[in-house]
Amino acid sequence: MERGVSEILIHDEFVKLLESKKKLRIKAGFDPTAPDLHFGHTVLLNKLRHFQEFGHTILFLIGDFTGQIGDPSGKNVTRPQLSNVEIKKNIGTYEEQAFKILDKERTEIHFNSHWMNKLSAADLISVAAKYNVARMLERDDFKKRYDSGKSIAIHEFLYPLVQGYDSVALKSDVEIGGTDQKFNLLVGRTLQQSFGLKPQVVITLPILEGLDGVQKMSKSLNNYIALNDSPSNMFGKIMSISDELMWRYYELLSFVGRESLAKLKRSTINGQNPRDIKFALASELVSRFHSEKLAEKAKKEFIELHSKGNVPKELKEFSLKFSKVSLSLASVLKQSGLVSSTSEARRLVTQKALRIDGALVVDVTQAIEKGSFVVQAGKRRFLKIVVT
Amino acid sequence: MERGVSEILIHDEFVKLLESKKKLRIKAGFDPTAPDLHFGHTVLLNKLRHFQEFGHTILFLIGDFTGQIGDPSGKNVTRPQLSNVEIKKNIGTYEEQAFKILDKERTEIHFNSHWMNKLSAADLISVAAKYNVARMLERDDFKKRYDSGKSIAIHEFLYPLVQGYDSVALKSDVEIGGTDQKFNLLVGRTLQQSFGLKPQVVITLPILEGLDGVQKMSKSLNNYIALNDSPSNMFGKIMSISDELMWRYYELLSFVGRESLAKLKRSTINGQNPRDIKFALASELVSRFHSEKLAEKAKKEFIELHSKGNVPKELKEFSLKFSKVSLSLASVLKQSGLVSSTSEARRLVTQKALRIDGALVVDVTQAIEKGSFVVQAGKRRFLKIVVT
Repeated sequence: MERGVSEILIHDEFVKLLESKKKLRIKAGFDPTAPDLHFGHTVLLNKLRHFQEFGHTILFLIGDFTGQIGDPSGKNVTRPQLSNVEIKKNIGTYEEQAFKILDKERTEIHFNSHWMNKLSAADLISVAAKYNVARMLERDDFKKRYDSGKSIAIHEFLYPLVQGYDSVALKSDVEIGGTDQKFNLLVGRTLQQSFGLKPQVVITLPILEGLDGVQKMSKSLNNYIALNDSPSNMFGKIMSISDELMWRYYELLSFVGRESLAKLKRSTINGQNPRDIKFALASELVSRFHSEKLAEKAKKEFIELHSKGNVPKELKEFSLKFSKVSLSLASVLKQSGLVSSTSEARRLVTQKALRIDGALVVDVTQAIEKGSFVVQAGKRRFLKIVVT
Repeated sequence: MERGVSEILIHDEFVKLLESKKKLRIKAGFDPTAPDLHFGHTVLLNKLRHFQEFGHTILFLIGDFTGQIGDPSGKNVTRPQLSNVEIKKNIGTYEEQAFKILDKERTEIHFNSHWMNKLSAADLISVAAKYNVARMLERDDFKKRYDSGKSIAIHEFLYPLVQGYDSVALKSDVEIGGTDQKFNLLVGRTLQQSFGLKPQVVITLPILEGLDGVQKMSKSLNNYIALNDSPSNMFGKIMSISDELMWRYYELLSFVGRESLAKLKRSTINGQNPRDIKFALASELVSRFHSEKLAEKAKKEFIELHSKGNVPKELKEFSLKFSKVSLSLASVLKQSGLVSSTSEARRLVTQKALRIDGALVVDVTQAIEKGSFVVQAGKRRFLKIVVT
């Protein structure tokens, strides 16, 4: 249970819980404003799945209440206010992706709006009475902002309490989240105690680095691998990471056992090409989220594109600024001069002769996202497009 | 308008308001947990009355919402949770007393539960987004507690916001309160601005000292003169204050004009006995809260008791501890030995021969309160009773 875990608080209570043979209620919270799950989320999902294999129940909590409110101070652009329609749509996306890993039978899906919308201002005041200002200001980001004179709006003190109150409503035995959530998870423990409940054990998991190997994997940094990425995209992205990061991904994403992993590491010392070990990781992960067959195909395409020297060593590069008005792939290709017209781009698609990072393009009207990718038109025309 | 005022924020806006000849909406908040009004409250009530005389409307706000919640942390014993029945009863007492001063026709009575009970947790979060932690921590008492490591529960940050939100709901032009309320009154101003309303002008009034001349007048310090005190009690209490405090009471409680007051002060230099000036104050105030006739009677009784040497210079004293189980006057008198039995006490009352601080006792079953007072049984028997 402790593989890939950062910290278990309070460890002896956790041991007792496991020994009790009780079916545990294990809470994990998800943000409905960012429903596109990426590999960073799967560190948590894998651990939850692990608990399910021992018969425990996962409380998959969608924080739609806070999503509905958004950021009332208007300062935090990363917390947009969502309409009910958007939230419902996001939640559909969530479930579809999460159940690629989780066992539906042992998962309860909860929305915190269910109890939070019933809570009155008076009730919230009573919850707020259970926690104090000095402790709240101990939270890392609050402390930094307070000490440096940056404003903290008072409602920001209420969000951890709402999150903690979710543990009261759900009567969770354990809550699992990223190390960056440690403070909030412990608020849940405190509130449960104040409400006369058995306090939850808190387990934190490491935060997965993105493709750059430095920053946290996140959509906004565009250094992520989405669960929805096409097999060839997913395969190509995994192959693009550094060898060092590969071992980190093995640790946190692969299901390869500890011993086999140690053996793999030793093999590189004995001259094994790390590229082959990366192939194995890419194949494992693409198989998991698509299928073994599609993983095999993606690998072939990757080798076709990269290993046989098809891609010129020195690629021409075309850079452009990302604008909010989304640009279609066709118009970018035309702008870059790779194709003479958008209709040429369309024709190439029909002829199955247009690829991005080795993957066949099926729709030239698709919007361009930030990042860099290699476009191949026909056999010989290559262009690296960088969108910043 | 500025007589007896501590501070007017923001002064130029206030001048503009007055010049606009508009009928102003002037808010003042009252705490339903302490409905027994005393002279300390009348500083505010007098100022409100003053505004009414110029045609303005007083928004008499009873903070029953917070009264219903009480102190959820259970630490603040001065904020008990009140039942609806208690609150209703307290409010009746309030109105009866407040309208001894205020003009009913130009008063709107409001209960903040009216809008606060409709507020959801989500609404309160939105209100909390309008104010920030650092500013809240600037409030004197919060700052002191935070700096000295004393706990501040998070809901304590919400109460000033609730109070401020009342100004949003009432659309007040002006709010008046004690100097100790300055911070909270300004929160109201800030919130009105955030909600797109014209922000209220804030006027603070000095806090009246109690009979001891040092501490704030308050029921819990037992240094107060209640609006409900009997004429002779009220008269006697006023006569008991120091000459220095007398001038303060003249300034804040009397309706004697500025010039007449200056004249009175000069008269003492010319040999006028301050006792006579105190008589005038006592008569003015007892007349206001009872009647001129009763004031005259109280004065006579006072002179009878104190001036004619009826009270022995060295009084025998009987001390006892105040206990939560309330003791009746009769049983205390028996314990002290002043009367031989509770039935003798009852008989004295029937004969109109039992006085406390000069005032006739009408009910020997009344509970004893903390403080010291002189009991007179018949013509000659005196005893000072001290309840600590």
